[in-house]
Amino acid sequence: MKKKIYLSEIIEFLAKEIITVLGNPENTYISNLSNSENVDKFTLDWISLMHTDQQRMTENSKAKVIITGTGIKYSETLKKQEKVIIQVENPKRSIAKVGNVFFIDKPKSGVDSTAIINKNTFIGKNVFIGPNVVVGKCIIGNNVIIHANTVLYDNVIIKDNVIIHAGSIIGVNGLGCSRNEEGELNVFPHIGGVIIEDNVEIGANSQVARGALSDTIIGKGCKINGLCFIAHNCMLGENVWITGSTMLSGSVKIEDNVTIYSKVVVREQIKIGREATIGMGAVVTKNIPAGEIWVGNPAKKFIK
Amino acid sequence: MKKKIYLSEIIEFLAKEIITVLGNPENTYISNLSNSENVDKFTLDWISLMHTDQQRMTENSKAKVIITGTGIKYSETLKKQEKVIIQVENPKRSIAKVGNVFFIDKPKSGVDSTAIINKNTFIGKNVFIGPNVVVGKCIIGNNVIIHANTVLYDNVIIKDNVIIHAGSIIGVNGLGCSRNEEGELNVFPHIGGVIIEDNVEIGANSQVARGALSDTIIGKGCKINGLCFIAHNCMLGENVWITGSTMLSGSVKIEDNVTIYSKVVVREQIKIGREATIGMGAVVTKNIPAGEIWVGNPAKKFIK
Amino acid sequence: MKKKIYLSEIIEFLAKEIITVLGNPENTYISNLSNSENVDKFTLDWISLMHTDQQRMTENSKAKVIITGTGIKYSETLKKQEKVIIQVENPKRSIAKVGNVFFIDKPKSGVDSTAIINKNTFIGKNVFIGPNVVVGKCIIGNNVIIHANTVLYDNVIIKDNVIIHAGSIIGVNGLGCSRNEEGELNVFPHIGGVIIEDNVEIGANSQVARGALSDTIIGKGCKINGLCFIAHNCMLGENVWITGSTMLSGSVKIEDNVTIYSKVVVREQIKIGREATIGMGAVVTKNIPAGEIWVGNPAKKFIK
Repeated sequence: MKKKIYLSEIIEFLAKEIITVLGNPENTYISNLSNSENVDKFTLDWISLMHTDQQRMTENSKAKVIITGTGIKYSETLKKQEKVIIQVENPKRSIAKVGNVFFIDKPKSGVDSTAIINKNTFIGKNVFIGPNVVVGKCIIGNNVIIHANTVLYDNVIIKDNVIIHAGSIIGVNGLGCSRNEEGELNVFPHIGGVIIEDNVEIGANSQVARGALSDTIIGKGCKINGLCFIAHNCMLGENVWITGSTMLSGSVKIEDNVTIYSKVVVREQIKIGREATIGMGAVVTKNIPAGEIWVGNPAKKFIK
Repeated sequence: MKKKIYLSEIIEFLAKEIITVLGNPENTYISNLSNSENVDKFTLDWISLMHTDQQRMTENSKAKVIITGTGIKYSETLKKQEKVIIQVENPKRSIAKVGNVFFIDKPKSGVDSTAIINKNTFIGKNVFIGPNVVVGKCIIGNNVIIHANTVLYDNVIIKDNVIIHAGSIIGVNGLGCSRNEEGELNVFPHIGGVIIEDNVEIGANSQVARGALSDTIIGKGCKINGLCFIAHNCMLGENVWITGSTMLSGSVKIEDNVTIYSKVVVREQIKIGREATIGMGAVVTKNIPAGEIWVGNPAKKFIK
Repeated sequence: MKKKIYLSEIIEFLAKEIITVLGNPENTYISNLSNSENVDKFTLDWISLMHTDQQRMTENSKAKVIITGTGIKYSETLKKQEKVIIQVENPKRSIAKVGNVFFIDKPKSGVDSTAIINKNTFIGKNVFIGPNVVVGKCIIGNNVIIHANTVLYDNVIIKDNVIIHAGSIIGVNGLGCSRNEEGELNVFPHIGGVIIEDNVEIGANSQVARGALSDTIIGKGCKINGLCFIAHNCMLGENVWITGSTMLSGSVKIEDNVTIYSKVVVREQIKIGREATIGMGAVVTKNIPAGEIWVGNPAKKFIK
C-alpha cells in the first residue's frame, strides 16, 4: 500500500530548517524516498549541495516536490511543471531527518517472549528487546532498542536511546594473557563492566569487551558499525564514528568527534585526539594528536 | 557405520566428465574421501593436476579407486594391484562434485520450531530454516538453507538455492552519518532492502546491510565467506568470490567473476572491473580495471 | 553486597608463589580488585614490576593489602599505616590468579532449557551450555563452558576445560572454490571436523571452520580472542595466542607458543615456527621461522 504523507506535515516537521518554499504545497502529498535513478512523481526528491548543476537537476527531476539548497530559482520550467521547491540549508540532512521519522518503522516496545533476561536486570521505559536476546545482570535505560540474537553479559549499563543491532556481544571478557615459563597462557581476569552512554548505536555482530578492573566506556552519541571489536577498558568520548570492521585494542582512549574508517586496528593504550581522522585499513601504533589525519600500515600523518 | 557407494553410481554421476575408465569397476565400492595422509583401500582417491609425478603418486596410492587426469598409463604396477583409474579432465573438480553429492548431508527441509518468522514472509519449497533463526518481512525462494541463529531484518529477498551460514545478519541498516556543527552524528536513514540472487552462499557471522534508498544486490552464484561486511547499496555481479573477513564499504560496484581475497577493505563508491583479483589484506582506494591484480596498502596494480 | 575475603584464604591460595609477608595479616580482609585510580582501603592492590618507583607507589597506595615484588622494604611509612605487603615473584600473575578464582563467577553447570542439542551428542561432566546454543552431532568434554547463542555444526570435538564465548560458530564449512570455464564457482566439499583441545578459550563471534577432508585442530591451551576466523584444516600447536580480529586462511600450520596480534591475515598453507610473533595488522604471505617477529603489509622480519 502506497504511503501518503501530506506536504504540510513535512513542512511543519522541517520548520526550523526551511528557508523558503517555492510553489504551492497545498493538497500535495509524497509517498516515497528514492535514489536518483528511480524517482517518480510521488518521490520526495532532493538535490545534494555537492552537485555543480543543481538548477538543471532540479528542473529535470521527475518528482513534484524537491528539497534543495538556497541557490535554486523558481524558473519558468519549474513553474510550468507546478513543482514545489523546499529550500533548506543542508538538503541531505533534511532528507535524512524526514527518512528517519516518516519512513523508518521502529520496532514496537516490549520484550520478546523468547528473550532471556536475568531477573535482577533493570529495564527502563519504552524498550524493545528482540527475539533470542540474552541479557545478564544489567541496567537498561529508556527508549533502548536491542535487536535479535544479541547477548549482554553481566555488568552492562546501557543508557537512553541506545540501539544495538543483531548478533552483537556486549560485556564479554577479553583474553589478555601472560605466558609462564613453559609458554602457557594465563588469562587476566576481567571483573569490570561496560557503560554505553545515551544515543549510541552499535552495528551487527560487533562486540564490546568488559573492562579488566574498571569499565569500558562508549561515550554519548557514538556510532559504531558492524563487526567492530572494542576491547577491554577502551574509553570513547562523545560522537566517535567508526564505520565498520575496526578493532580497538585494550585501554585505547579516544576523544570527542573522532572519525575512524573501516578495517582499522589500534594498538593498546593508544590515545587519539579530538576530531582526528583515521583512514581505512590503518594500523595505528602511535598516539594521534587532535585534528590530524593518519593512514597506512604503520599509520602515519597524512599530508595533503 | 561405513558408507558403501558402488563405483557404478559414481561413474554414472560423473558420466559427462569421464574420459576413460581403466581397470574393472564392477562390484567395487568406496566408502570415504580423505586427505593424502589417511588414504585407505576404500578411499576414493584423486591426484591433482598440479603434481609433476602423477603416475608415481597414482601407483603409490593405497586406494583401489583413483580419479586422475588423462596422462596416467595403466602400468603393470596398477594392473597387478587391480586398481581402477577414472580419468577426467579436472580431478579436483570431479572429486568436489562427488563430495558434495555423496558425502555432504544437507539439512532436511523444514522450518525449525524455534525459528521466528514474520507472518507476512513468503517461503518457497524445500527450504530449511534452522534453530533460532529470526526472519522479518522477507521473501525466501526455493531450496534455500538458512543455518542456526541467522537474522534477516525486513525487506530481504532471497532467491533459489541460496545458503546462509550460522550467525549471519542480512538487511541491517548501515550507520552512514553526517556530523552537525557540534560534531553530533546523524544516521542517514536506510529504507532499501537486500536482494540475494540464486546460488549465493554466505559464510558464518557475515553481514549484508540494506540499501539506503535502493537495494543492496548480491549477484547470482557469488560465494562470500565468513565475517565479511557488505555495506549498503553494494552491487555485486555474478560469481564474485570473497574468501573471508573482507569489508566492502557503501555503494561499491563489482563486476562478474571478480576474486577478492581475505581481510580486504574497499572504499565506498569504488568500481571493480570484471575478473579483477584483489590480494589478501589490500586497502582499495581507487577503481580497479577489469582483469588486473591489485595488492597492498594502499592497493596498487601488481606487476609480476 | 560487599565481598569479604579474609587474607588468610588468599595467602593459603597463593602459598607457592609467596616469598614473604610483611606486616600482620591476621583478621584482615579485602573486598575488591581495582584499577589504580579507584583503589580504596579494601582493595587488594598490586604494584607491577614494570614501574621504576615501586617503593613509593606501595607507600602511596590507599589499600591496606598490597601484592608486590621482592624489592619492597617494610619502611616506617608502611609500618605506621599497618600495611600488609605480600611479596611474590610476579605480582601481575598472582593478582590474575586471585581475580580468576575469587572474583569471577563461573556459570553454574547445566544445559540451558533453550539450548538445542543433537540427540547423538555426548556431553561430559560439569558442562555449562548457555541459552540458544545450538549443538550438532558433537563430543563435548568435561568442565566446558559454551556461552549463549553459539553454534556448533556437526563433527566438532571439544575437550576438557574449554570456554567458547557468545556468538561463535564452530564447524562451519569453508567456501574454498574452483571456477569453471564460465567463471562459475564450485564450492569444495568439507567433510572433516574440528578438534579443540584442552584449556582452549575462544572469544565472541569468532569462527573455526571444519576441515575439507581431515580435521581443523586447535591445540591445547590456545587463546583466540573475538572476531577471529580460523579456516579449514588449520593446525595450531599449543599455547598459541591470537588477540582478536585475525584470519588464518586454509591449512595454515602454527607451532607452539606463537603470538599473533590483532587484525592479522595469514595466507593459506603458510607455516609459522615456534615462538614467532606476528605484529598487529600484518599480511603474512611467507613462512615465518621460529622465534622471529614479522610485521607489515606484506609482512617482513622486524629487526630492532
